[in-house]
Amino acid sequence: MRLSTLRHACRNLPTPSVHQPRTGVRVFGLAKSSLRLGPSSNSQLLLRAASSVSGTTSAEKAPKLGKQTDGPGYENTIRENVQRTKEEMVALQRGHPALKPTLAIIQADEDDRLLELNKKMAGKIGLNVTQICLPRECTEDEIIEEVLKLNEDPRVHGVYLHLPPASLTSRVLNTLRPEKDVDGVSDLNVGRLVRGDMNQGFIPPLANAVMELLARHDTPMEGRIVLVVGGEGPLGVALQCLMQRRGMVVLHSRRSSEVLQKQANAVVLLAAGHMDVPPTWLKPGTAVIHCGSALMTEDHGMEMSGVGPLTAALRMQNVVQSSSRWAQGQQYRPWTLRSLKLQPLSPVPSDIEISRAQTPKPVDQLAQEIGLLQEETEAYGRTKAKVRLSLLDRLREQPDGKYVLVAGITPTPLGEGKSTVVIGLVQALSAHLKLNSFACLRQPSQGPTFGVKGGAAGGGYAQVIPMEEFNLHLTGDIHAITAANNLVAAAIDARMLHEATQKDKALYSRLVPSVNGVRRFSPIQISRLRRLGISEIDPSALTPQEVSSFVRLDLDPAKVTWQRVVDTNDRFLRKITVGQASTEKGHVRETQFDIAVASEIMAILALADGLGDMKTRLGRMVVGSSRSGQPVTAEDLGVSGALAVLMKDAIKPTLMQTLEGSPVFVHAGPFANIAHGNSSVLADKLALKLVGEDGFVVTEAGFGADIGMEKFFNIKCRASGLRPNVVVLVATVRALKMHGGGPNVSAGSPLPREYIDENLSLVVKGCSSNLRKQIQIAHLFGVPVVVALNVFKTDTQAEIDLVCQMAKESGASDAVPCHHWARGGRGSVELAQAVKQAGSQPSHFQFLYSQETPIVEKIRMIAQKVYGADDIELSPEAQAKIDYYNQQGYGKLPICMAKTHLSLSHLPEKKGAPTGFTLPIRDIRASIGAGFIYPLVGTMSTMPGLPTRPCFYDIDLDPVTEEITGLF
Amino acid sequence: MRLSTLRHACRNLPTPSVHQPRTGVRVFGLAKSSLRLGPSSNSQLLLRAASSVSGTTSAEKAPKLGKQTDGPGYENTIRENVQRTKEEMVALQRGHPALKPTLAIIQADEDDRLLELNKKMAGKIGLNVTQICLPRECTEDEIIEEVLKLNEDPRVHGVYLHLPPASLTSRVLNTLRPEKDVDGVSDLNVGRLVRGDMNQGFIPPLANAVMELLARHDTPMEGRIVLVVGGEGPLGVALQCLMQRRGMVVLHSRRSSEVLQKQANAVVLLAAGHMDVPPTWLKPGTAVIHCGSALMTEDHGMEMSGVGPLTAALRMQNVVQSSSRWAQGQQYRPWTLRSLKLQPLSPVPSDIEISRAQTPKPVDQLAQEIGLLQEETEAYGRTKAKVRLSLLDRLREQPDGKYVLVAGITPTPLGEGKSTVVIGLVQALSAHLKLNSFACLRQPSQGPTFGVKGGAAGGGYAQVIPMEEFNLHLTGDIHAITAANNLVAAAIDARMLHEATQKDKALYSRLVPSVNGVRRFSPIQISRLRRLGISEIDPSALTPQEVSSFVRLDLDPAKVTWQRVVDTNDRFLRKITVGQASTEKGHVRETQFDIAVASEIMAILALADGLGDMKTRLGRMVVGSSRSGQPVTAEDLGVSGALAVLMKDAIKPTLMQTLEGSPVFVHAGPFANIAHGNSSVLADKLALKLVGEDGFVVTEAGFGADIGMEKFFNIKCRASGLRPNVVVLVATVRALKMHGGGPNVSAGSPLPREYIDENLSLVVKGCSSNLRKQIQIAHLFGVPVVVALNVFKTDTQAEIDLVCQMAKESGASDAVPCHHWARGGRGSVELAQAVKQAGSQPSHFQFLYSQETPIVEKIRMIAQKVYGADDIELSPEAQAKIDYYNQQGYGKLPICMAKTHLSLSHLPEKKGAPTGFTLPIRDIRASIGAGFIYPLVGTMSTMPGLPTRPCFYDIDLDPVTEEITGLF
Repeated sequence: MRLSTLRHACRNLPTPSVHQPRTGVRVFGLAKSSLRLGPSSNSQLLLRAASSVSGTTSAEKAPKLGKQTDGPGYENTIRENVQRTKEEMVALQRGHPALKPTLAIIQADEDDRLLELNKKMAGKIGLNVTQICLPRECTEDEIIEEVLKLNEDPRVHGVYLHLPPASLTSRVLNTLRPEKDVDGVSDLNVGRLVRGDMNQGFIPPLANAVMELLARHDTPMEGRIVLVVGGEGPLGVALQCLMQRRGMVVLHSRRSSEVLQKQANAVVLLAAGHMDVPPTWLKPGTAVIHCGSALMTEDHGMEMSGVGPLTAALRMQNVVQSSSRWAQGQQYRPWTLRSLKLQPLSPVPSDIEISRAQTPKPVDQLAQEIGLLQEETEAYGRTKAKVRLSLLDRLREQPDGKYVLVAGITPTPLGEGKSTVVIGLVQALSAHLKLNSFACLRQPSQGPTFGVKGGAAGGGYAQVIPMEEFNLHLTGDIHAITAANNLVAAAIDARMLHEATQKDKALYSRLVPSVNGVRRFSPIQISRLRRLGISEIDPSALTPQEVSSFVRLDLDPAKVTWQRVVDTNDRFLRKITVGQASTEKGHVRETQFDIAVASEIMAILALADGLGDMKTRLGRMVVGSSRSGQPVTAEDLGVSGALAVLMKDAIKPTLMQTLEGSPVFVHAGPFANIAHGNSSVLADKLALKLVGEDGFVVTEAGFGADIGMEKFFNIKCRASGLRPNVVVLVATVRALKMHGGGPNVSAGSPLPREYIDENLSLVVKGCSSNLRKQIQIAHLFGVPVVVALNVFKTDTQAEIDLVCQMAKESGASDAVPCHHWARGGRGSVELAQAVKQAGSQPSHFQFLYSQETPIVEKIRMIAQKVYGADDIELSPEAQAKIDYYNQQGYGKLPICMAKTHLSLSHLPEKKGAPTGFTLPIRDIRASIGAGFIYPLVGTMSTMPGLPTRPCFYDIDLDPVTEEITGLF
Repeated sequence: MRLSTLRHACRNLPTPSVHQPRTGVRVFGLAKSSLRLGPSSNSQLLLRAASSVSGTTSAEKAPKLGKQTDGPGYENTIRENVQRTKEEMVALQRGHPALKPTLAIIQADEDDRLLELNKKMAGKIGLNVTQICLPRECTEDEIIEEVLKLNEDPRVHGVYLHLPPASLTSRVLNTLRPEKDVDGVSDLNVGRLVRGDMNQGFIPPLANAVMELLARHDTPMEGRIVLVVGGEGPLGVALQCLMQRRGMVVLHSRRSSEVLQKQANAVVLLAAGHMDVPPTWLKPGTAVIHCGSALMTEDHGMEMSGVGPLTAALRMQNVVQSSSRWAQGQQYRPWTLRSLKLQPLSPVPSDIEISRAQTPKPVDQLAQEIGLLQEETEAYGRTKAKVRLSLLDRLREQPDGKYVLVAGITPTPLGEGKSTVVIGLVQALSAHLKLNSFACLRQPSQGPTFGVKGGAAGGGYAQVIPMEEFNLHLTGDIHAITAANNLVAAAIDARMLHEATQKDKALYSRLVPSVNGVRRFSPIQISRLRRLGISEIDPSALTPQEVSSFVRLDLDPAKVTWQRVVDTNDRFLRKITVGQASTEKGHVRETQFDIAVASEIMAILALADGLGDMKTRLGRMVVGSSRSGQPVTAEDLGVSGALAVLMKDAIKPTLMQTLEGSPVFVHAGPFANIAHGNSSVLADKLALKLVGEDGFVVTEAGFGADIGMEKFFNIKCRASGLRPNVVVLVATVRALKMHGGGPNVSAGSPLPREYIDENLSLVVKGCSSNLRKQIQIAHLFGVPVVVALNVFKTDTQAEIDLVCQMAKESGASDAVPCHHWARGGRGSVELAQAVKQAGSQPSHFQFLYSQETPIVEKIRMIAQKVYGADDIELSPEAQAKIDYYNQQGYGKLPICMAKTHLSLSHLPEKKGAPTGFTLPIRDIRASIGAGFIYPLVGTMSTMPGLPTRPCFYDIDLDPVTEEITGLF
């Protein structure tokens, strides 16, 4: 009798699932009838060919090569594998209690025996099983649709395609994500197996089962000849690779023959129908494994026979392995950051030329390098991506990196280059010291880009690239803020008009209309009712008085504090009259437009801790007060949900990169004149998780340390709960000379000699006044200071040395010259080392004041301790506002001073470190949504203008190459 | 003597490049000394083992198995391969004259012999070679950086990594794009080879060389045993797969042995050092191919010996094949569109619920399905992508598909659902008739989203998804338009202020400043000088008169026509006074804000033919006129380059998809009240190329056919040169009843019975008036009409039948009821078939008027032929404007009527098809950049307002799930 007559094999196909014939319940299985499975004491399974085939005698002549094992031996093999996998499951779930390893099965038609077997095995091991049942005649597209859904489903760790062979097209197999291809049949996984990479792909379960069986042969197979018959595809190749790696000599043929069989120590029949393996051709003791046989459960009542059960067990092992890799992948991933080469030219070309000469890494690759998961990013073109906040949750347990703030001495028209220091420092840390580091920058307003300001993407060889993407629309966050801000403004004026022209009843019937006969409050309206102390939720049950208080915000037009915004330097909008069209029936009103970044919504974006927090803050923004003096909020206007919808993407920080390929978050840029002027809390938090414990996050505070840094500590760090480790204080020789008494400079006039020639006495005076004072301010907060001297060509060595020496004498932990503008990160390695050193010191951070301190005292503490004022002087308006804020319960908010940045005092012309002045508080305002009170020390402009020759004169676009010229 | 002593093999590595030892010039080669290469008449190469090995006699005993061939035989093999590849090159370049097949080589250190050989071979075949020489000790990152650059470089078709084995890490090999991996060593390509897919990967050249040699053995190898020694990695596997596919029996072992060798009909030694193949072990006539031997050029003066040259030739063949595939890939690609399943519910849920219940395909996958190349798209998140205009160039030769316009009868408050028809039709065409089809839609203004309007993404089961992405920021195009528009506005007011407050000389020195001692005009300024007729380019050489005319735009504040815009329904900005702050020194001015989509820049975006055309149009926009009556343009303001920069991404259409997975372009949405109200020319052009000759592009015209369709034909088609094939005219029973004399309806009041109960007489009157007239208007342009009756639940069968019958009697090619809102594409299959049928008829498109026709005549033709007016009546202002425009040379521009959309006449209350009226032309304006003149028939609102209860009351965001509620 020929062995082949016992089985019904299907076509040569890669996996058991593939081999599943559409008729009957036949599967791959160990050819029981061709093997003698004797009793075993050591669980070794002897696979001897033909010995039990009735009607032949050759088996009798076969010499015994080892101990015989019987059915129980094979069952032990399965049991051992199941046991091992179960143990792996237990270990996995111990480490990840929330993880539920899951196998998804896509099947066509009803369950069959093989499927039952696999599900049973999954159950034994404790795997979740998700079944997707497609109709028997499903199309390739329908399968692909399901595969794509499973690809995206993070709860599924492995997919078993239990489909007719004809459905298992290359497109289907290769659509499945390789990390879920637990049958190891995708091209990529086959290639990996061939190359010997076992860290990423999967061993096809059937091939693995064969190897398991061969390993249990009582003669070691190493150096022996194994004849593999059939299976030219991925399965056969996988098996051969595994065998060769175990030192077997593989003889592979489409069909068996006497001459081949005579050579073999083992014969593996990989499917292919009607193959003859006459026992007489076999050498005695030869193992035969037949993978194309039926699962003869019903016939023989031995369910655990055949290769099927072992294959199923090993498939489940792959699912557990995949789950384990998934869990591993959810952990913090060490960076594999690839730096971009920089070859600085001299003289240094224009910023846009430098930016354009560098090819940025594709942003998805950068994201991968810094350990972001694919599903955590959303690309915006090829060089920008938004990063999802779910990252914070994934890396909850990960310790933060070091938090470095770059601040500056009091600014002068000569420039300090804080952004450039941030980027240069990160380039030095990451590309040269090979430390994980991240720059967190503000998104610049687009208005000034076309006015007079330089770019905000850094400069020279310390830039964010592509700089035009950074400086222009970016990912639309500021546009979203503009839209949200102006929706509030439109809602205010429209509401005042509607209230003025309608009676309570009409207003009420419009605000709470009957829809299909039902009147209902919207959730936003219910919130307003709650604030009004009305607990009723049936619109028909309100008293006329309640209706009136509900429908009338009764905004006082003279007390609307909300302004419209536009992201353009449009000075003619600084003061305007609106409502002059006849349709607005004479409800004219004076108001103004601010630059978009001055919107309170920008400050909220910068301080929010998440989507929920942002939504709450948006809802509680106060837009003005009623005639009776009650604050009116965005939620009262009914617009808070719409604001959250408009801002839902803006809340995700945007990932970009430096010229040397280090990661950068660009997120939020609140106007430093009236808000806190720092980039977002969320970007810093994400970055601190990503860099890891030994990494560095470098962020920037606007203006001088007295303003930007003070607000960073007292407002931003208070909101975020983050604690800074190091302050980098940026200074230049030129600016210090001006603080030391150097002459004024004006645009267009030649620079006075004092700033070009060596002048040590001016440097001394500048250091001992402004620089020393700013260092002392940082020390007030208990944070170590490193002074970064941004070197200009005209600086002499004596001047540089002098600044560094005096900075250290003033208490700086270190003070070093920096050359990143001309040389990139390499030019700031010394700074990076100083920061690393300072970061290893313990930080004793403390706030300047407690939230509980009364408003006036908070202002006084800032004025005296930070600015050096003798005292403060409140105008009557300011005093009245303080009383009002206290009455409204806003007294615990931190203070955000709106003071000139050009002096430590309120007088811009007073350089150095002025003393003996009283700080006048002209008025006080509040950003209740953002969560701070801002005293106005002077008149703060909230709308820049365009000069006679705006820089747009030089900006152009080549329509063929699409290259931009003239942008800085 | 043992063969192994003759060669110096390197480690087991996948490719020749990989095998390259760092010392010496040894490469894989045919073991010449082990073979006798006799003279040949038929170029067959006999590979007989050991016969020439001196000192042995076994060869003498070997029986002759075939004709002996000598060195020339092997050389012939190479020559034949080279010749064939050269012929392929010639054929390829004949079809693609611009294509220059190119091999890029990344090498470490200097050229070596193997590299020389490959370069020589490339030269023979006519390939370009690009060499990248890295330092000997280059890092993995440096190699990766170069690989990534080559990946992105469309001029490179194959990459040869001629690097030390240690540098050929998995990361390097798998970073290289598989389509450029001509050595076939990436995991994916190995997997493809194993699966037998020869359409995508590459056969490793060395494996191919071995197969070539075996094929030339004088005994066919099929069914014979080939012993492969060594090479467990990708190369060995590739070779085995190839052999098995040729029917050989492969015996694979790490090292040779007598017992194995005795079996073999051929022995292939794949590298591995010091392998012994004693001739005595070989069967007579056995072929031996040694791949680990040296290229013994210098020793033997026979450069063309060894496997090296043949391998190099076959590598070049792969490069040519890759080039050919690249060229093929640049051709039009048939679609492989996967439809999304739709299971409509009843009753139909809200739009956002339907949208959210469907999972859109990842946009990169959609892009691939419709034949876009990877480099032609820029993702914006996962469901939107911008498509690059370079596509138009790639598919230049591709014939356009059919062009279908969806227009409507005169709108009523009861709604028609044109957008829904567009989407339903495309869903039916693509998902049900399986015809390539594309919807081209306008991007809706965001303002009305929070006001009263429904969504513009369609509705019910005919929608663009995700609808919230469609309706909100999309990809920021409208924000870009807002920024560009308002930059012009800010520039105008700032310029007027600066001119008013400075003398000529001061203005001139500011406008043309001295930078580092050099004064120079910017290119934008030189353009202005040209327009002023000044040819001088030296700033110091202008006469005072020339300086004055250059520096003074002398804009008349009363004649500034440019308005600011905002994408918010802000009625209080309809008329405002600006410049009231003291800093603007009393230069107050009345002006207004329009809704952003009313900006001329939006109309330009919709009509531009490319980046260059857009830039030209932006520059020639007229913003007002000077006191002397000269038009002042954006280029005069110096802002045109900046506008192009702001708009550079907005010009790329945004790809999205319908509920059933059909592609949609969303691009531009000019305000139909004062502009032409059609989506962009560029989106239509891209879509027409993509759908291919038998495909359909369906786009929509705003308002009724008398307005939207007329402008589509006379303005958009004139600008684009595209010719429509079919007009789909959308009607509803309800709207027809109103045109037939049904009562007015008002929001909030119950719908009159006429619209709910059957009323055939109103239907008859509506059909014979408005419907018939609108069909006739389409026929004026020579385009066949299909009437789509958008069925409502209350419509009776008799009403439906009546409309269809009367439409056909009025000349429609067909008229069919549509049910896409409730049923998706399946509900509009009949419409799709009617459109397909109508599209197969010849179209005799003609314009209504010639450009040369005088302005007044053009207006009159539209009024009489389209609207049915007796005549027109020009106000004195209108007449004066016409004279002015004629004088300025604008007389040839097409006409864009600004007329109410609620009636064919100028009187909104006149339904049906009014006659006997004279159309009054109140005023005339011009959008010179967009390129049309727009007569004002009535007062057109350009800024919508918010009602008492704007729809933002219902809009909310769940901060945890991030789901939006209440958006339509």
